[in-house]
Amino acid sequence: MAEPKYLSGDPSAISAFLDKFDTFLIDCDGTRESVPFKTIKLLQSKGKRTVFVTNNSTKSRKEYYAKLSSKGIPCQVEDIFGSSYSAAIYISRILKLEPPRNKVFVLGEAGIEAELESEGVPYIGGTDPKYRKLGMEPEDFAGIADGSTLDPDVGVVLAGLDFHVNYFKLAHAHGYLRGNHVKDAKNAKDGGKAIFLATNIDSTLPMYHNFFPGAGSASVVALSNMTGDQPLALGKPSQAMMDAVEGKFHLDRSRTCMIGDRLNTDIQFGVEGNLGGTLAVLTGVNKKEDWEKADAPAVPAYYVDGLADLRG
Amino acid sequence: MAEPKYLSGDPSAISAFLDKFDTFLIDCDGTRESVPFKTIKLLQSKGKRTVFVTNNSTKSRKEYYAKLSSKGIPCQVEDIFGSSYSAAIYISRILKLEPPRNKVFVLGEAGIEAELESEGVPYIGGTDPKYRKLGMEPEDFAGIADGSTLDPDVGVVLAGLDFHVNYFKLAHAHGYLRGNHVKDAKNAKDGGKAIFLATNIDSTLPMYHNFFPGAGSASVVALSNMTGDQPLALGKPSQAMMDAVEGKFHLDRSRTCMIGDRLNTDIQFGVEGNLGGTLAVLTGVNKKEDWEKADAPAVPAYYVDGLADLRG
Repeated sequence: MAEPKYLSGDPSAISAFLDKFDTFLIDCDGTRESVPFKTIKLLQSKGKRTVFVTNNSTKSRKEYYAKLSSKGIPCQVEDIFGSSYSAAIYISRILKLEPPRNKVFVLGEAGIEAELESEGVPYIGGTDPKYRKLGMEPEDFAGIADGSTLDPDVGVVLAGLDFHVNYFKLAHAHGYLRGNHVKDAKNAKDGGKAIFLATNIDSTLPMYHNFFPGAGSASVVALSNMTGDQPLALGKPSQAMMDAVEGKFHLDRSRTCMIGDRLNTDIQFGVEGNLGGTLAVLTGVNKKEDWEKADAPAVPAYYVDGLADLRG
Repeated sequence: MAEPKYLSGDPSAISAFLDKFDTFLIDCDGTRESVPFKTIKLLQSKGKRTVFVTNNSTKSRKEYYAKLSSKGIPCQVEDIFGSSYSAAIYISRILKLEPPRNKVFVLGEAGIEAELESEGVPYIGGTDPKYRKLGMEPEDFAGIADGSTLDPDVGVVLAGLDFHVNYFKLAHAHGYLRGNHVKDAKNAKDGGKAIFLATNIDSTLPMYHNFFPGAGSASVVALSNMTGDQPLALGKPSQAMMDAVEGKFHLDRSRTCMIGDRLNTDIQFGVEGNLGGTLAVLTGVNKKEDWEKADAPAVPAYYVDGLADLRG
């Protein structure tokens, strides 16, 4: 493995780097500083395509567009690719669920709902006030246990970041993953169990210059610990997301570079996707010492102290 | 490893089994059938000591006593040993926290609070309505991130089964585990981080003849996935619990038998504790094929189809 090349303060290296790529996939999960609009404008002025890739499932593409635009970052809704959208596409175009078990039980926020709606996928759960409940009544346990209060049409549990996660929701999701809702589940070829998907499995969420529970911790790992099954995760570093990005943007992987701060999502996403390059930005989660460890999830091809350094 | 001996329907084997032990530690996490009162009475009539051991942290010993008594199971409060009590003893008698960082942040129900109170351990969180909240406001993120809304006196995070678990509580627990609440945390010898304890790590909770999220799934694994640290768990199979049980009841381990249904809690607890025997009851979570697997967490010395079989 070649040593990652440090670009900050090296104009000729930066120039050679920029010449190698037509498309930049840019992580937009972190803080504002990781995507400074001047750098985005520079890339665009050089005829580069900029695609914003996020694992945050709480916002839809439209909401992300509004957020990026408000920060002066030049983009279109179509330039944004989120884990909720990735999951919605996977469900509608790959799984192609047939009735009766074609509904999605959502453990997440409005962003997932918006993307499922955009793909015409029926769902329950999500932001429905019925599931925003603390504590369990005996009838809650009884109804989930015998399936009488569950929806027999659920075929998928999709877990993402949910700021309203609670035991009642987790118990419902677990009931669907066990197949409690399917009559004669024992004789169903899948045991009546709903397919387990996750928008992403980030363990933490960077907010307010600190870290908070990520989708992986607050919902996904709870469910996989109960069932013993791992979900198919549709966000970075899942190659299901890369395939969907490639299909949508018709990109040449060898002329594409992934830019981000997180080794086990952004950089791994680019490396496993055989992109022409990966650029680590040191303003976020991971630092140089992280990829120097023997068990580093991925090693970037390039790195900068901050994205502003690309302006030379 | 000797083959587990099957006792059901074998009066001479049952008689030999009963003669080997003075004390029976009896799991009382599962359904009513796993502790039939007639069997308990039979054991007691033969002069055996019966101690009820539970990983369920939601009830205090007094509440468990009321529950067992209502089912006609002869016992005293003192015969009950729960994971909440085990955790409270560990905190008060082993950790012996000194002010200022001597408070416990509780992720759990009233059972934990009652046991902490019985040991005189100060705590926050738990059933306090302030933490029974869904969703996060910007000021919630900000206050946890900079520690301004956290209690600087917290020295332990104790996670157990919490039917009111939510993102707000998880974010608080995570903030304490990171040391957000400690000024000058970088220079503190423990980095300001609260000690991470769990009453138990059971992945599921048997209820209504089905399974629901256990403490391990609904709170503990979420926190350990965020921090990368495993808690010290004070319930079965933790030997900290066995030491506490031994200390309290002055039992002779070689003349003590653990009875329960779960290999990775009950049976492992007895095997690792070098008890004279372990008896698996097939009315609960695990079956014979589970201990026949190469990666079985523990193998019992004896097994019966149901505890009633001990009556011959």
